[in-house]
This record gives sequence, C-alpha cells and structure tokens, in this order.
Amino acid sequence: MTPEAEWMAVARILVEKWIQADLDRPNPMAERIIEAMRYSVLAGGKRLRPLLVLAAGDYLRVPLESLRLPALALEYIHTYSLIHDDLPAMDNDDLRRGKPTNHKVFGEALAILAGDGLLNEAFLKLSELGVDSEFSSGNVLRALRGLARASGAEGLIAGQTLDLASEHQELSLAGLQTVHGRKTGALFQAACQMPAWLTGNMDAADRLHRFGWHFGLAFQIVDDILNVVGDAAIMGKSTGTDSNLSKATYPRLVGVEASWMMARGHVQSAEEALGPDLDNAQRLLSLLRQAVNRVA
Amino acid sequence: MTPEAEWMAVARILVEKWIQADLDRPNPMAERIIEAMRYSVLAGGKRLRPLLVLAAGDYLRVPLESLRLPALALEYIHTYSLIHDDLPAMDNDDLRRGKPTNHKVFGEALAILAGDGLLNEAFLKLSELGVDSEFSSGNVLRALRGLARASGAEGLIAGQTLDLASEHQELSLAGLQTVHGRKTGALFQAACQMPAWLTGNMDAADRLHRFGWHFGLAFQIVDDILNVVGDAAIMGKSTGTDSNLSKATYPRLVGVEASWMMARGHVQSAEEALGPDLDNAQRLLSLLRQAVNRVA
Repeated sequence: MTPEAEWMAVARILVEKWIQADLDRPNPMAERIIEAMRYSVLAGGKRLRPLLVLAAGDYLRVPLESLRLPALALEYIHTYSLIHDDLPAMDNDDLRRGKPTNHKVFGEALAILAGDGLLNEAFLKLSELGVDSEFSSGNVLRALRGLARASGAEGLIAGQTLDLASEHQELSLAGLQTVHGRKTGALFQAACQMPAWLTGNMDAADRLHRFGWHFGLAFQIVDDILNVVGDAAIMGKSTGTDSNLSKATYPRLVGVEASWMMARGHVQSAEEALGPDLDNAQRLLSLLRQAVNRVA
Repeated sequence: MTPEAEWMAVARILVEKWIQADLDRPNPMAERIIEAMRYSVLAGGKRLRPLLVLAAGDYLRVPLESLRLPALALEYIHTYSLIHDDLPAMDNDDLRRGKPTNHKVFGEALAILAGDGLLNEAFLKLSELGVDSEFSSGNVLRALRGLARASGAEGLIAGQTLDLASEHQELSLAGLQTVHGRKTGALFQAACQMPAWLTGNMDAADRLHRFGWHFGLAFQIVDDILNVVGDAAIMGKSTGTDSNLSKATYPRLVGVEASWMMARGHVQSAEEALGPDLDNAQRLLSLLRQAVNRVA
C-alpha cells in the first residue's frame, strides 16, 4: 500500500466510525425522526465531503481527530440535500445507493423533516466546535459563515433551483457549469476550505477554494459520464435517468470523449490551484484522482 | 400611549424595516429562489419571535439595534417551518395569513427549497453576528448552539414529527403539551434566551427559558381556542381545520372554558419565572398579555 492509500483507508474508517456513533442517541420525544435521519446517513456513499475535510486538514497539518464535527457537518448537509432532491416533487427517485429513498421508507412528510433535521444538525455540529476546541471561536464562526453561504440560496440551493428550471429548457455548456458549480462545487469548496477557515489561514482558503471548484466540476462531469456509460448494478441507482428527463448533461452537450477531456482539464486546474509546492498535497491529489477514475 | 405600547410600536416598525431590507438583494444565479423566500417572509404575521428577542433584550438592557441579526434568524426559522408545514405531504394548507401558501404560488419543489433556503439563511444571519459585533465570538457560538438545538430534531422538528403522528391517534393532555412544547415552545424559548446567550448571562438565560416555555404554551392554547371560536376573516386562515382532522387540541380535550384557565395559568407561571423584580420586564409582560388577549 502507498502511504496515500494507507492514509485513505484510515480516514475512511474514522469517518464511518464518527458517522455510526453520532446519531446513535435516544430521542424519547420522537424516535422516528432520528431513525429517518440515520437511515439516509447510514445508507452508504463515498463520504467524499468528509474525506475532503480530512485531506485538506492533512494539507494544512491539522490533526484528523480535531475535524470530526466539521466532517460530520458536511456529510449531513450532503445527505439532507439528497433526501430533499429525491422527493416526488423534485427528482422523484425511488432508489439511492441501491436502497429505497427516504420517502419510500418513511413517507414524504417524515422525509422532508429528516432533511430539515440533518440541516439543523449540521449547524449544531459545527457550532459545538466552539466548546473546548483548539480552534478560536472567531475562526469557528468564520467556518459557519462559509458553510452557510455554500449551502444557502447563493450556493447549493441556487444550484438545485437552476437544476429544476433546466429540466424545461436547453442549457448551454456555460449554463451547465453554473448549475454544477453551485449544486456540487459549492459544498466541495466548503469541505476543502473548512480546515483553512478553522485555522484562519486565508491564503490557503483561497487556494483550496479554487481546488474545490475544479474538483467539484471534474467530479460532476464524471458523474454525468457514468450516468450514460456506467453499470446500474455498480452505481446502485438507475442509469440513463438523465437522458430520460432530457436533462442537459456534459455527454449530451459535447459527447463522452470531449467530456472526459474537460474532466481531465479540471483535474489539472485543481492541481495547479494548489501552487508549485505539492509536498503536503498528496492526500488531496489522490482523493482527486480516485474521484475521477472511479467506475461508480 | 403607555410607554410599553410606544416601545412596541417602535419595535414593530424596526422589525418590519429589517425584514423588508434583508432579502432585497439580487441573486443573479437564481432569482426565483429569493423571490419564493421573500414571498413567505413578507406575507405578514405577528413577528412575535423577533419581538420576543427585542423585548428580552430590553429586559437585559441590550440595545434593540444590536439584535437585528438574531431577530431575523428567528423569523426565518419560523417562516421556513410554516412553508414546510403547509406542504401537501404535511398539513396541505392552501392559505396562510390570507394569502396562497408558498407551494400554491411557486410549486412544491421551489417551496421545499425556499424553506431550506430560509433555514440556511437563519444560521448565516446569526453567524454574521461574529463580524464587528459587540458580542464575543464565544457567546455568538453559544447562541448558535441554542438556536440549532431549539429548531432541530430534539426541538421544533420533534414537535412536527409528534404532530404528524398524533393525527392518527388520541393524545392525552400531557402528550399535547409535549407536542406544543416542542413545536411552539422551543423556538419561543430560543427567542427569549437569545440576548442572554449573547451577553453570556446564564442566570437570565435560565429565567427566560422558563418564561419562554410558559409563553409558548399560553400562546398555543389561545391558538387552539381561536381555531374553534375565532373569525376566519380576521385569522386569515381557515378556522375549524383542527377538528376536521380530528386532531387533538386543548378545547377538544378539556373544553374552551378550561382551556382559557390553563392559558391564564401559563401566563402567571411565565410572570413568576422572571422572579420578584419585574421592573425591567414590562415589555416582555406586555407582549405576553397581547399574545393571550389577541383575537386572531
């Protein structure tokens, strides 16, 4: 195993452990809501956003263990957005990661509330970083602002709004990039910047902002490609769904081959964003390569 | 005009001004989402939660002007919860404050996102209090934790979950109080405690926690009563809806007369929670009286 592969294995185990432990708590008032929240959080997934938090932490020499709460916050916001995205009024998906979607199991009302619960929980997690933390309260607040902007009406939610609107109109390549930049990029950027915000390293925050942008776009283009050429059994969700909705995707706009070239271009731009000195960046870069070379 | 009535008039104007100005911003990426968020925020309402923030601030000698961001945060969380509550999968309401509900105007998908947007915005607002603020970052984080707990899966969302479940079963009086304590009480408590958290006055936070609890329950009982005996035209929403769903309410469980007595009991307990020295509490108490003596 390379040191990067070893680090990744350790980081993955740590993230899973945190996720398993965190929502394992009684809620005597309303057991069902925690159950619904846990269902989607534990339904698997690549844990890419928490891993990005940890890899960016490694880049800035921030210990893994001190990033538990921000890592959870990122995964919860991602999961909330998936639960709401899957609702009948939105994408109307029955399967997610090979399992019935939240509303298929718990009903629409509870699925809406489970998403709401996870969004709240994300901000609670991050604000708990203010207690006995090695990070200053001012920097924790900076991270909270950054996360709230990334997930809010100018970030992730703008992306979802544009995505809805685009189902009924032809999108240009630039338009598609705007959607993906918000819907995927914003949260990737926040994940990458998290350790920089928490340590008040604004120079690094700037570099990681650009890195996260290109990482998000590369990831999303590969997602689009796998939706066309991927294997439904490996993907754990229906493939070909995008073209059914005649939704704009990279392969549909420029073809599979040109999409790959664009993804590789973003990988290169992401590397360049970290500057000439890449000694500390090996974990970030191996996460990037994995995300682009995946088959599902 | 009494000094209390004068203060209330000023506070109301201030809150409306803040609310009008805050979301009046371009969102070139996705105009529609801000429009949907604004629609419900500007649809009127009593602005009781922001007014509670200001009245509790007055109680602790915190200047009105310094409470703009927390006041907005409370109103946004309240509005998000109404938008999601009104959805077809939840209470399926067509009217709110005499106007079509959010999903009736913007469609279900955008209504879900508008609620999500406002919840994000609430946490963004409060975290912005960390910039050039008279409150310490540690205390702002304390307020964020308090708000996230009040609106999360153990607070407001627990109340909504219990409320959903109660449509299909008989609730006892104690059960009903548990629902209301979460669904209404938690956010009232957070509104009252906000200035105490922000100034790190934990003794006052404790008193205001109990005050907010009884205020919330008194308010909710009166709401139940008005739903039975109120005037639909004044209320701006359909009355009699609760009994249609054969939902548990105070009047249904104990009758209108006993419900009034219970509301008055909570008013008294709220007063007592503030302790013997009520010199600074006049604005809080007049808000309490108004909330109980309202006709809509």
